[in-house]
Amino acid sequence: MISQNDQFIKAAKVMPGGVNSSTRFNKAIMMPFYVSHGKGSKVTGVDGKEYIDMSCAHGAGLLGMAHPAVDEALRKAGEIGYVNSFETVYHEELASYVVETVACADKVRFCSSGSEATLHLIRACRGYTGKNKIIRVEGHFHGYHEMIYIGGHPPVSEFPRNRIDPYIESAGIPRQFAQLVVSVPFNDEDALKEAIEKHGNETALLILEPVNFNCAGIRADDSYLQLARKLTAENNIILFFDEIQSAYKKSFQAAQNELNIIPDVTTIGKSIGGGFPLSAFCGKKEIMDCYAPAGSVQHSGTFNAHLVPVLTGLAFMHEASAPYFYPELRKLEKQFHEGINKIIADNELNMVVPNFGARFNIVLGRRTPAKNYEETFCHNNQVFLNILKGCFDRGVYFHDYGGGPSHHGYSIQHTHEDIDLVLNVLEEVLLENKEYLLTQ
Amino acid sequence: MISQNDQFIKAAKVMPGGVNSSTRFNKAIMMPFYVSHGKGSKVTGVDGKEYIDMSCAHGAGLLGMAHPAVDEALRKAGEIGYVNSFETVYHEELASYVVETVACADKVRFCSSGSEATLHLIRACRGYTGKNKIIRVEGHFHGYHEMIYIGGHPPVSEFPRNRIDPYIESAGIPRQFAQLVVSVPFNDEDALKEAIEKHGNETALLILEPVNFNCAGIRADDSYLQLARKLTAENNIILFFDEIQSAYKKSFQAAQNELNIIPDVTTIGKSIGGGFPLSAFCGKKEIMDCYAPAGSVQHSGTFNAHLVPVLTGLAFMHEASAPYFYPELRKLEKQFHEGINKIIADNELNMVVPNFGARFNIVLGRRTPAKNYEETFCHNNQVFLNILKGCFDRGVYFHDYGGGPSHHGYSIQHTHEDIDLVLNVLEEVLLENKEYLLTQ
Repeated sequence: MISQNDQFIKAAKVMPGGVNSSTRFNKAIMMPFYVSHGKGSKVTGVDGKEYIDMSCAHGAGLLGMAHPAVDEALRKAGEIGYVNSFETVYHEELASYVVETVACADKVRFCSSGSEATLHLIRACRGYTGKNKIIRVEGHFHGYHEMIYIGGHPPVSEFPRNRIDPYIESAGIPRQFAQLVVSVPFNDEDALKEAIEKHGNETALLILEPVNFNCAGIRADDSYLQLARKLTAENNIILFFDEIQSAYKKSFQAAQNELNIIPDVTTIGKSIGGGFPLSAFCGKKEIMDCYAPAGSVQHSGTFNAHLVPVLTGLAFMHEASAPYFYPELRKLEKQFHEGINKIIADNELNMVVPNFGARFNIVLGRRTPAKNYEETFCHNNQVFLNILKGCFDRGVYFHDYGGGPSHHGYSIQHTHEDIDLVLNVLEEVLLENKEYLLTQ
Repeated sequence: MISQNDQFIKAAKVMPGGVNSSTRFNKAIMMPFYVSHGKGSKVTGVDGKEYIDMSCAHGAGLLGMAHPAVDEALRKAGEIGYVNSFETVYHEELASYVVETVACADKVRFCSSGSEATLHLIRACRGYTGKNKIIRVEGHFHGYHEMIYIGGHPPVSEFPRNRIDPYIESAGIPRQFAQLVVSVPFNDEDALKEAIEKHGNETALLILEPVNFNCAGIRADDSYLQLARKLTAENNIILFFDEIQSAYKKSFQAAQNELNIIPDVTTIGKSIGGGFPLSAFCGKKEIMDCYAPAGSVQHSGTFNAHLVPVLTGLAFMHEASAPYFYPELRKLEKQFHEGINKIIADNELNMVVPNFGARFNIVLGRRTPAKNYEETFCHNNQVFLNILKGCFDRGVYFHDYGGGPSHHGYSIQHTHEDIDLVLNVLEEVLLENKEYLLTQ
């Protein structure tokens, strides 16, 4: 055993910030959270302290940790010899599950990360349309790369300029790339019409999260999605739903199926791999067949669709399609949201906790769900970090993604006892911060 | 069991080209190679036929398949509960191995694929220097993404224009990206001087493979590397060695250590993960500390450095640092190269098989190693595919990456009997194609 701080000091000597992902530095505890092991809904720190895990691998851990079906997948992978960079019958089986469960998916390909998925699919959209611009929506997130890590989450000070000159979200991204991005406010039909009128001739795709988990869990208005579908079809623009976070969170399908709006292409990630590095991108046949060897868009990689994530992905598909799975998640959902809503109402707290299935956002400073990014500026992030810290000190781990009202959730291995404990802790911590939650 | 062709038909219905990586379509057999399992040096197709694997997961499989150390790593991962998106002590342990074995590495970060590694590290180079251009070398390969999949492998017809207007290697990459790339011929000191004179003020990095495995295994001249080191240092340009393929192939260190030229930053991939999806990028402290949270360059991802690849990566480090490992690989290397060189000499074949440790390239049409990309145009790819097909029919799997004199290799689990068999098969197949190999 070692203290969190000592491990941080050791790790920071050999890895920038002591982590392999910048956002693993948790500002609530002012260091990364180093863990020794996990089981089910619980994760244990390197210092031996146990926590209920309300991060669930940023949404990838819908099966929880050390799930028996994942154990079994790993055993099978061992029998097969962990063959890497070859295709197997399991790849086709997993692809078939995606085709069956994601409305727009005629064909699919797998890669390791969500960022890879959007990167490769944006390339196909450009290849297919012969156009280069991207219309994207403020507050939405589509991966850490030069195509699209632009114009999504401008700080408040940069916000007014974002629609003329999209904000570049990382150092090292050349300004030229921002000229290919047009950023529009969410749920604003006039702004969407205007952007397509102005840029439609040069625009390859309109990309958005149908459930904006990466900012306050904002839902798309039905009429907005219908308009997006209509205008993109009319203007030879590919409608791209980023469902990396939303697919399989509420039911054994993508959000697009629930919302009854079928985009042209979609990215799927997080839970699809059973907690292992797997993402998918899929869409209409004519677009997907742009990829070589059939077409001229490249998508290659030694580690694409490694056998182990493919088998743990199949384990996820088998579990999630079993009759018990979503009914059980819905019971946890009911318990959690009835509980948190009662705490909010009883104490007249100025906050709201919208959700889509087993994942939710905590938004401070407003009592109704936001409609767009600007409406989330009321979220006081320092108070939010205090809340996450209070939970951490009481044995509940919520992840800080670096700012904004981000997403949290539970897994199929969380128990009703876990949810009770989380609600008790949240109540205690929220009341400690009540002054701020009333006055914001 | 199912025939290769039937599996191809099934897979192609749900995945473009029937694969998850465009280059898995093997033109030698005019379909992808679908496998059922592997063990050690052997891989078995879905049709039950067994092959000696001379692809070794494009270089990632230096441990071979189903290695006991990998089994043990997976068992341990199960005990730990496959925690995902958290850091553990194993991350720091693996990072320390990289710092010890790669000359330029003060600090390191891990991600899933080689493409991700170059993508994220190029961003830091731009962030650090405040400049945007990339000088890259013809014939070298640095990943399938918009930053750098430009100007590397132009077809012969496009070759003359490549140095003025770098060739875009995939549909869907906007022309704007090519304006940030300058392509120079390998081992040409005057061309390098000229490019730096002309573009140095705007150039963030010079990227190259010290051993050009992605084209004919071309080695850098010592004086070329010394000049590259000198000119980049003088012009505030980061010297970036892409060692995704070359690190750990010859000894328990990077090629830069052997060559005694220390770049500023380096990417490492393939074998580092023990056959699992893992890549690393590393470099001098002041550059690596550009990454958030310390700096302002973003590098994040849920699946970065997943516990399982980290543990299989440690399994690789433990095996590769054991006293038996490289001496045993060197015996296989001696056997293979003495054998193939004798076949070439005895039959006066017009070909050469350069290598760096356990990986080699097969180059047709010339008897001495090439010095640059242009010198490999003598390689007749149709004859090469005939050779790979002849080997396949005789139970030896060589991968076709889609053209050019690419790389192949063996693993620590290959036996001297395997190498004998491969040499016998190669001799038979080369003699069948002797007419072409003499007249080219």
